[in-house]
Amino acid sequence: MKKSLVALALMGVFAGAYAQSSVTIYGTVDAGISKRTGTTTMVGKRDNNKLGFKGVEDLGSGLKAIFQLEIRYEPDTGTIENTSGANSRPLFQGQSRVGLQGDFGTVRLGRGLTAFQETSTAFEPWSGMPAIAGYQTDLQVAGYTSDPLSQLGNSNNRFSNAVFYNTPVIADIFQFNATVSAKEANNNPVIIGKGTAAAPQFPANTAPLTTAYSLSATATSGPFAAYAAYEKNAIETKLWSVGASFKPVNDLKLMGSYQKQDQASSTLINPITKAWLLGANYTVGAGLVRFGYGQKTPDNSLGNPALAKTKQTSVGYDYNLSARTYLYVDASNKKAATTLNFYSLGIHHNF
Amino acid sequence: MKKSLVALALMGVFAGAYAQSSVTIYGTVDAGISKRTGTTTMVGKRDNNKLGFKGVEDLGSGLKAIFQLEIRYEPDTGTIENTSGANSRPLFQGQSRVGLQGDFGTVRLGRGLTAFQETSTAFEPWSGMPAIAGYQTDLQVAGYTSDPLSQLGNSNNRFSNAVFYNTPVIADIFQFNATVSAKEANNNPVIIGKGTAAAPQFPANTAPLTTAYSLSATATSGPFAAYAAYEKNAIETKLWSVGASFKPVNDLKLMGSYQKQDQASSTLINPITKAWLLGANYTVGAGLVRFGYGQKTPDNSLGNPALAKTKQTSVGYDYNLSARTYLYVDASNKKAATTLNFYSLGIHHNF
Amino acid sequence: MKKSLVALALMGVFAGAYAQSSVTIYGTVDAGISKRTGTTTMVGKRDNNKLGFKGVEDLGSGLKAIFQLEIRYEPDTGTIENTSGANSRPLFQGQSRVGLQGDFGTVRLGRGLTAFQETSTAFEPWSGMPAIAGYQTDLQVAGYTSDPLSQLGNSNNRFSNAVFYNTPVIADIFQFNATVSAKEANNNPVIIGKGTAAAPQFPANTAPLTTAYSLSATATSGPFAAYAAYEKNAIETKLWSVGASFKPVNDLKLMGSYQKQDQASSTLINPITKAWLLGANYTVGAGLVRFGYGQKTPDNSLGNPALAKTKQTSVGYDYNLSARTYLYVDASNKKAATTLNFYSLGIHHNF
Repeated sequence: MKKSLVALALMGVFAGAYAQSSVTIYGTVDAGISKRTGTTTMVGKRDNNKLGFKGVEDLGSGLKAIFQLEIRYEPDTGTIENTSGANSRPLFQGQSRVGLQGDFGTVRLGRGLTAFQETSTAFEPWSGMPAIAGYQTDLQVAGYTSDPLSQLGNSNNRFSNAVFYNTPVIADIFQFNATVSAKEANNNPVIIGKGTAAAPQFPANTAPLTTAYSLSATATSGPFAAYAAYEKNAIETKLWSVGASFKPVNDLKLMGSYQKQDQASSTLINPITKAWLLGANYTVGAGLVRFGYGQKTPDNSLGNPALAKTKQTSVGYDYNLSARTYLYVDASNKKAATTLNFYSLGIHHNF
Repeated sequence: MKKSLVALALMGVFAGAYAQSSVTIYGTVDAGISKRTGTTTMVGKRDNNKLGFKGVEDLGSGLKAIFQLEIRYEPDTGTIENTSGANSRPLFQGQSRVGLQGDFGTVRLGRGLTAFQETSTAFEPWSGMPAIAGYQTDLQVAGYTSDPLSQLGNSNNRFSNAVFYNTPVIADIFQFNATVSAKEANNNPVIIGKGTAAAPQFPANTAPLTTAYSLSATATSGPFAAYAAYEKNAIETKLWSVGASFKPVNDLKLMGSYQKQDQASSTLINPITKAWLLGANYTVGAGLVRFGYGQKTPDNSLGNPALAKTKQTSVGYDYNLSARTYLYVDASNKKAATTLNFYSLGIHHNF
Repeated sequence: MKKSLVALALMGVFAGAYAQSSVTIYGTVDAGISKRTGTTTMVGKRDNNKLGFKGVEDLGSGLKAIFQLEIRYEPDTGTIENTSGANSRPLFQGQSRVGLQGDFGTVRLGRGLTAFQETSTAFEPWSGMPAIAGYQTDLQVAGYTSDPLSQLGNSNNRFSNAVFYNTPVIADIFQFNATVSAKEANNNPVIIGKGTAAAPQFPANTAPLTTAYSLSATATSGPFAAYAAYEKNAIETKLWSVGASFKPVNDLKLMGSYQKQDQASSTLINPITKAWLLGANYTVGAGLVRFGYGQKTPDNSLGNPALAKTKQTSVGYDYNLSARTYLYVDASNKKAATTLNFYSLGIHHNF
């Protein structure tokens, strides 16, 4: 029987106009009880909470089409990540990317972690998790933000409107990664910067001053790994970092990094911030001990007020119930203008 | 071939760093045509509309990791549940919980129905659906709300930032359930309460006065089931309820409950509300007849204005097309200060 | 072992109270780089981006229950479709429908494309994609919008709160389709219409003046197809259109349509807009060439200011990497009061 047009549309809708691909659903639910100085005991999290959809299609000749969409949410309240009043992060805050993978490497379009941020997570003792006890979003980037011209409360380590490129692994050792973002305005709030309240440097919904980009290189050989990375954001803040890790025995990973942020383009005082970080991950039976110590030092050479140095010491422990599920405890002490003590206990489940 | 760091990250992303678990996608689409006194004929719903993701991982020794994330939405407009202007419910309004299940029972963290609310649905003739013809959100809780300090329009029967515990079934008869919520502020609007417009009892984004908790106990034996439940919310409103059900024959379930709310902590007049409810579910072939009658009686002993008593009579019919799909009709008469007649006709599909 | 009530609820939650249905997850990720007159080079899209969930349940005797929920999102920023500040489209912007399919045709309830809009996409050279180079949202509907009384930024070609009916294919040739929407208010902003700023014709959150409906008929026979469609929206704007397509050889599809919009109910000047459109799709090996030309002509007989005529010429090329993935380029020139040139290059991946 022939089908007319809407009938075909309905069949397409319900029977599938092309073969069903194997979409993989994955995610993380991480919830725990935490206490920090000066607040009530809370239900919180150690890691990002994710619900994602991804797939790969083999196009032949080594070419693959890949996509990934990742929802981020808060399990304690059920909202999408960081929702507070009118401000909320995108539905696919984790990433929304599509691209091709082949002998030439991987090219993707959309939104995701910058090359810098994606590389540096492997040299951070909390595995790049945005845990209070971890270092990823503050000391490991010397307080830098990748996306200053987005909505208030937005992610600090992603580019929107971007092209992402990763080389293949070269000579079994090296890989290079680059992210470049288009100069599109993205609903930023007013940022005074070097201006005044009456004439801010960046009015609301400003187009980027410059093409933001992010570069990283990694080298891996036996127990050694190292990286160097550089990033410049849409308001011309610059960040560079070098780091390395070493495994003296298989169960122990030592790591360290140094980073420097330059905010000269958007601040009149103290534009330079330096930070360094040492960490260790030690596997003991079904457990993993995490340890980190680091400092973030503002440049107090120009103007007042002087900014406080930050010193952070953290220790954590994961107890693996399976390859997908673990319980954890974290304790952290962070000294800056004020001192923050933080404790948490929770469960981390991947699916 | 060895892989360097971002290459490994990309592989992890697209190949899966751990075995794919069997995430179950489930949900409900319920849409119908309804008419109530004084409004136009509308496309509405009888039940909550859900799109959920859940999973269970066997950890060995009887221990399991469980999670569940449940989107709620409105099929007539495609929005997430209860979106009206700037106010919308969380993406995972249904629930967002993770936990462990074992010989000790079930412990979960996150957001979900309180112990009271989860227990009482089994003693409500519309199976706890928030149907206009049903009793779940009004008479069965004597008008009580579990979460008064959340955003406007939020759910009335859930705790955020909570720990949920259910015992195993004891002696094949008894089960006990408890929910405790952390004292976190959750973006409530101003609530005048015992204060004044100038000095409201609960300003915006108030931290809870007290640790909100919810307790329930059930007993089941042959055709008999009974429960008792108690809950105190974050502004110290108290609710208790007892109820029972009985099946004289297998196709007939009779049920009843009594509940009392005490709002003395936040109202100057008429703090007590009592309600009772009788219901029946009768299976006839592929059909199910639902019937309910109940009253809600405000305490008019203190102050004015006197509040009207509510009397609600409802009848419904489900016609099962399969174990997952049925058509329904509902008719309801609710008399209070004004009288509401309600009729609906629709389809309910589980997937 | 018998289970008590909450235990049963927990089992239902984690073990499934009914057999798991085969929910199909599907979607599109389309992202590219585009440049239009007067703006910066951007990361954009050619097609809608979708993440959907659909299913069909066989009820026996040729009867089926069907549902479909479709998220729409922007891959360049990760947000749900068209989010700008406080305005965003529904989570399930694509559609949220449930219904029954049988010998009588298909009946669905919820939100989705109107009969008119669903039919006309088959006669548009960009396959109804909302590409800048395409004609679907402007010339093919003579500038008409299906849903003027929804939130700002809402979809222009859907009905919310609607009943959708499609006949089966009759005599292997004909199909008729109808959509009727309930007269529910849906949070529209103030629309001045024939009123004044002080007394707008449509205040905020206005209930529809009339029952909006949409009708279409299609006929398909060998290489020929034709349609006629009529729609009247909630503010009594009327649109009709006729169109046809013809395949002289299998690799070539020619198409054309004529449409007329009448806005007399809501505008004092120039209520009539006429438009016509010619297009071609030509398959060459793994490629598809798209071409279109059309004009939109406002009625300048009444009042001032005179409105400009629109002339649009577009050409596109798809290169299929597989049945699910293609690369594309588009170029378009649209002349009206100003001239817009548009170029894009991207990847389109279905999953």
